[in-house]
Amino acid sequence: MNWIEGKKCSAEDAAAMIQDGDILGVSGFTLAGYPKAVPLALAARAEKLHVAGESFQVTLYAGASTGDSCDGALSRAGALKLRMPYQSNPSLRKGINDGSIRYIDAHLGKMGYLVRTGAVPAPTVAVIEVSAILPDGRVCLSTSGGNSVCYLDMAPKIILELNTRLGESCIGMHDDALPELPPHAKPLPVYSAGDRVGSEFVKIDVNKVIAVVENDAYDEVTPFVEPDDVSRNIGERILDFIRFEESHGRLPKGMAYQSGVGKVANAVLCAMANDERLGRIDLFTEVIQEAVLPLLKKGKLGVASGTALTLSQAAQQEFVQNAADWKKHFVLRQQEVSNSPDIIRRVGVISMNTALEADIFGNVNSSLVCGSAMMNGIGGSADFARNCALGFFLTPSVAKGGAISSIVPYVSHVDHTEHDTQIFVTEQGLADLRGLASEDRARLIIKNCAHPDFREPLTDFLEYGLKHAKGRHLPLALDRAFEMHNRFLETGKML
Amino acid sequence: MNWIEGKKCSAEDAAAMIQDGDILGVSGFTLAGYPKAVPLALAARAEKLHVAGESFQVTLYAGASTGDSCDGALSRAGALKLRMPYQSNPSLRKGINDGSIRYIDAHLGKMGYLVRTGAVPAPTVAVIEVSAILPDGRVCLSTSGGNSVCYLDMAPKIILELNTRLGESCIGMHDDALPELPPHAKPLPVYSAGDRVGSEFVKIDVNKVIAVVENDAYDEVTPFVEPDDVSRNIGERILDFIRFEESHGRLPKGMAYQSGVGKVANAVLCAMANDERLGRIDLFTEVIQEAVLPLLKKGKLGVASGTALTLSQAAQQEFVQNAADWKKHFVLRQQEVSNSPDIIRRVGVISMNTALEADIFGNVNSSLVCGSAMMNGIGGSADFARNCALGFFLTPSVAKGGAISSIVPYVSHVDHTEHDTQIFVTEQGLADLRGLASEDRARLIIKNCAHPDFREPLTDFLEYGLKHAKGRHLPLALDRAFEMHNRFLETGKML
Repeated sequence: MNWIEGKKCSAEDAAAMIQDGDILGVSGFTLAGYPKAVPLALAARAEKLHVAGESFQVTLYAGASTGDSCDGALSRAGALKLRMPYQSNPSLRKGINDGSIRYIDAHLGKMGYLVRTGAVPAPTVAVIEVSAILPDGRVCLSTSGGNSVCYLDMAPKIILELNTRLGESCIGMHDDALPELPPHAKPLPVYSAGDRVGSEFVKIDVNKVIAVVENDAYDEVTPFVEPDDVSRNIGERILDFIRFEESHGRLPKGMAYQSGVGKVANAVLCAMANDERLGRIDLFTEVIQEAVLPLLKKGKLGVASGTALTLSQAAQQEFVQNAADWKKHFVLRQQEVSNSPDIIRRVGVISMNTALEADIFGNVNSSLVCGSAMMNGIGGSADFARNCALGFFLTPSVAKGGAISSIVPYVSHVDHTEHDTQIFVTEQGLADLRGLASEDRARLIIKNCAHPDFREPLTDFLEYGLKHAKGRHLPLALDRAFEMHNRFLETGKML
Repeated sequence: MNWIEGKKCSAEDAAAMIQDGDILGVSGFTLAGYPKAVPLALAARAEKLHVAGESFQVTLYAGASTGDSCDGALSRAGALKLRMPYQSNPSLRKGINDGSIRYIDAHLGKMGYLVRTGAVPAPTVAVIEVSAILPDGRVCLSTSGGNSVCYLDMAPKIILELNTRLGESCIGMHDDALPELPPHAKPLPVYSAGDRVGSEFVKIDVNKVIAVVENDAYDEVTPFVEPDDVSRNIGERILDFIRFEESHGRLPKGMAYQSGVGKVANAVLCAMANDERLGRIDLFTEVIQEAVLPLLKKGKLGVASGTALTLSQAAQQEFVQNAADWKKHFVLRQQEVSNSPDIIRRVGVISMNTALEADIFGNVNSSLVCGSAMMNGIGGSADFARNCALGFFLTPSVAKGGAISSIVPYVSHVDHTEHDTQIFVTEQGLADLRGLASEDRARLIIKNCAHPDFREPLTDFLEYGLKHAKGRHLPLALDRAFEMHNRFLETGKML
């Protein structure tokens, strides 16, 4: 009997090996490749203990968001003390915003670095979904890279979840390299989306493995939705602008694309797949989303490099069936590499991320509703926004049927400062902020990006600031900065 | 007669070659190595033209702040249309804040990149101070690197200011390398402060040189002031903390230090020079300030790598006299290299920057008074804050004799988001924010960093937010966010 068979046990038995106060380092990134059986069993164990009057809570580090059987179940069981970084689960979000779960929203590219350098405590147990375990102690990760290599290395105990549904579909897709730590760190020689610099398997210390649990589940990803008119409109504006820049010699050929999570970003990729003039493209991104498949099927995908392959259940089936042919087009990296500032700079990335709200001076809020309530998190948007060659922030101009303007006098939380943003796009139009001072930016954003209903109040705010703010450099009037937000909190409408 | 003699002319003649609407790319970084004669003559020319009813304004790109004979004279003459990036001149600041001069506050590490990639228009005339001109078309820059290599390369016309006072003191100090541009850019092999990867001279196209003007002036730097008690206190707290981290294995040996502009940062270096337990150290910084000289004289300086050598007039004299012995300890780089995110990450930097104000949630404002009036600019603080291995933001806890708290409920401008800050230090104490969620950060910052007079109102704000903010994740109450700032604007006091 090899070591693997000797460690096999039920999810319940594995969950029983986790103690109150443990720090779990789990696999998983944007609903792809997270452990599915052990967290569910752990949630049940926590509920029983709580009923019996015993305390049981763990800290959960992930790659990014995990599915409901991990983030959701543990949140509902009251089993989470602290969660870090990015999440997107309704139950977890509720706990974060009612103050019962602590949440730290770190840059996704920096999470592993924080753990490896001791800036945050190391995980005590790694719980990692894998698609293969070899007798010599190598494992193949499943549908995401995340921080799994870091957690497998740093945690003194390891629980492996072997996803038997995946077969050999993931073998050959991963690249396990991590950047060297400073001081005097040598760079990883990744210059293009397709460059591989590590191994396709991760070598683990088998003496640390305390359990091997099988699951055959799908990543709990919602079905893919075709882009709506607003998203399609935004996607087409971006492609038009890229062509314009290329024609003026400001954008060399060979840049790779990054697109953030969500329907607008998906729409851009769909627009690319449908664009006859666009040749073959590479992606250098964090999440490889479903919209990459049309590109692949039309022969327009070079390589998609990312840290997660986030597909609907139907597309997961399709991927496993076609993996032998398709996987040469994919590289799944650790998120310290997919989101590495220096690799993003060197590869050359055209970056497209969704804004929750943007202000007339160029700041962007990606994460907090009305400055205090967490939506999902900053994700990797800042890794890309500051280090990309060309950067877009996208948002429909209004939300909640027109009650909320996405363009505001001043964002209620700053995730991206005016120093890091370049181009705003809404279905109303596009504002290229590069080379513009604050007042000029404000006039352009109001004119090109704001919804017509909000242009007058936004202009009124700007004119008031030019008269009453302490300085005119960035004419923000503090006494009226959050007037629209406060009106929304009181009446449900910004106007 | 070689080409150099043929181009020699007066500053007035050179200034006459500059046209209304030109974009000047000048040398100079934090008052070091800027052109001194031509800008002064250009200011006089602008004034005459204005009196005659003619329009005359230029755009001015620099490395960072230049001296009064450049930024100051041109501002007072009404000769500046747009200025970019960082400045520190009172006349220029006045123009920026009364709205007569447009100002774009870019990350210092990115300015050259913006020019080289066409994100902003290229300079039409480069005006660069040099310390030597060789007949073969090579020049040696003077006391700063800045963006001079970029501007010399991108501008179709070049005016050289030869500073005859410097003699050979700068030869051998510079490294002219610039990072490759994406896509598929190879990294510069800089792994330590002392690594040199380019040439000590810059090769220019002599056909582009339209004038060579001599000056023998000093950089207009104010006299060095010994640290006060508050600054010394902050400096010592930082050194204590670094020792604590080292003793807990969280800070490997071999990191280099970066210290921002100003008296607090200077005080840290002075504390290092006086610390018997501290061995030889390297600096990897943007501005090499006067406080580096005590380190050098005590034999405690390995290499100081930066883009500017900013010394008082007395120290400038001393440097020229001792340059033959001293300059092996200095490398002056282009600011795209001194402030390169990826090189900062790889070298491994302990970063110390001054905050104008910081909030209880971890955001930092480095640049704008009451959210609208420009002080100096963001400088390179964000290049270092996000990419350093260990990062401090420093500020005395109060300003204006206690009327202003540097710790506020919410900063009036965000230059560094809560995702990018690590450790706050005031003379009251130190708050290590790593691994803490928002509410815990807030309590620690109030307890350890705020002045005792402001602890109660700040706690009151936090408790109010926990009750009334939309979410408790980051309990910012928008209706009271700027209460302290607005009271200050009305009454001159935050309380």
